[in-house]
Amino acid sequence: MMKIDILSLFPEMFAPLEHSIVGKAKEKGLLEINYHNFREYAEKARHVDDEPYGGGQGMLLRAQPIFDAYEALEKKGQPRVILLDPAGKVFNQAYAEDLAQSDHLVFICGHYEGYDERIKTLVTDEISLGDFVLTGGELAAMTIVDATVRLIPEVIGKEASHQDDSFSSGLLEYPQYTRPYDFRGMTVPEVLMSGHHENIRLWRMEQSLRKTLERRPDLLDSYDFTPEEVKLLESIKSDKAIE
Amino acid sequence: MMKIDILSLFPEMFAPLEHSIVGKAKEKGLLEINYHNFREYAEKARHVDDEPYGGGQGMLLRAQPIFDAYEALEKKGQPRVILLDPAGKVFNQAYAEDLAQSDHLVFICGHYEGYDERIKTLVTDEISLGDFVLTGGELAAMTIVDATVRLIPEVIGKEASHQDDSFSSGLLEYPQYTRPYDFRGMTVPEVLMSGHHENIRLWRMEQSLRKTLERRPDLLDSYDFTPEEVKLLESIKSDKAIE
Repeated sequence: MMKIDILSLFPEMFAPLEHSIVGKAKEKGLLEINYHNFREYAEKARHVDDEPYGGGQGMLLRAQPIFDAYEALEKKGQPRVILLDPAGKVFNQAYAEDLAQSDHLVFICGHYEGYDERIKTLVTDEISLGDFVLTGGELAAMTIVDATVRLIPEVIGKEASHQDDSFSSGLLEYPQYTRPYDFRGMTVPEVLMSGHHENIRLWRMEQSLRKTLERRPDLLDSYDFTPEEVKLLESIKSDKAIE
Repeated sequence: MMKIDILSLFPEMFAPLEHSIVGKAKEKGLLEINYHNFREYAEKARHVDDEPYGGGQGMLLRAQPIFDAYEALEKKGQPRVILLDPAGKVFNQAYAEDLAQSDHLVFICGHYEGYDERIKTLVTDEISLGDFVLTGGELAAMTIVDATVRLIPEVIGKEASHQDDSFSSGLLEYPQYTRPYDFRGMTVPEVLMSGHHENIRLWRMEQSLRKTLERRPDLLDSYDFTPEEVKLLESIKSDKAIE
């Protein structure tokens, strides 16, 4: 069973996780998740934040409440201690797969105005959700928890398999359609109505390759092509050259 | 005043936004935000999702409930209609700045198992939060709302200015420290204790440049250097060459 501990000044913000895959993982006994308000660990008459040495705007999280909150946690193996920080390593699916192998994840949610640098001596992973600034680490932590917990074996049932996910296959997904056939004059591509499984498979493969080539050619650099896909991609590229 | 409408099957997941900058923006009369459960728009005896044409695992969102929910919205100017999708354009600070200029944002939160392709005919912006898979679009939408709303003029007071943010300056942030000077034997760099403003400014500039060079050299490609920074960066690079 995975254990997750979240250190945050706003533990109530994490309520939506219970509606998500996290709730299901808990029900199935595959996850324990606890929220800790590190304000409760601040030394008497001290705040959780203070002014920066050397001057500057904004307040910084102090080291002491974070250290004391972390030390009070019951550890399971060697915890991965994650600090949400825009200067961290950018989160992606491979990172989620790596975190999903861990027995114990600890998230430290600061404010992006900053924190005392010495907090980083506790940290094993500085993670950034992307090149943008949030008001706090909570939404980033929730996002990383969601992406990670769904990869724990048996959390997602086979009816909602993640085998076909973008980034699991390494390509972007082909277009999909459901009923009705004609929606406001927009119809479903005929191949999908044909019942011809091989043609459908080839059409989807081509659509995935074409979309990835147009939107995210960088993903193709690390993609492990089948010989069939190589041939199809070459044919798509020569089509485009003619256009 | 900016207007945001969110179409989601789980509107209750958005409660944390009220604790964040969104709550403050509403209090200041700078933002109106509404949540709409598009399940209420599904035609009688029909579900919001259905099986994919051509076969495959998972269920897809149907077009009709989304179209009807969108059409029921009171529009303000030309809304930006945002679909959260792993195949979309990757969200970043420049994208947040662009969205912050808009009068009306509409978010369509699907499930990442997929949706009927025809929904995209309503959409102006397909956005991905990053190269990872989430169980739904809600956390991604909340994250984008948070990053965007804090950039609306006057939402953040001057005490919490975002002038110094990572990605606003274009460089990663320098290390910061707050009291005490000595925390468990770890002390604050002497320059920050010196009171010498010019030395502090230079130390911070060097730390920012060094950290960005080490961790995210890609950010330097688009950075608008001052002559002073150019000189400092060259000196950092030649230091490193000697190491």
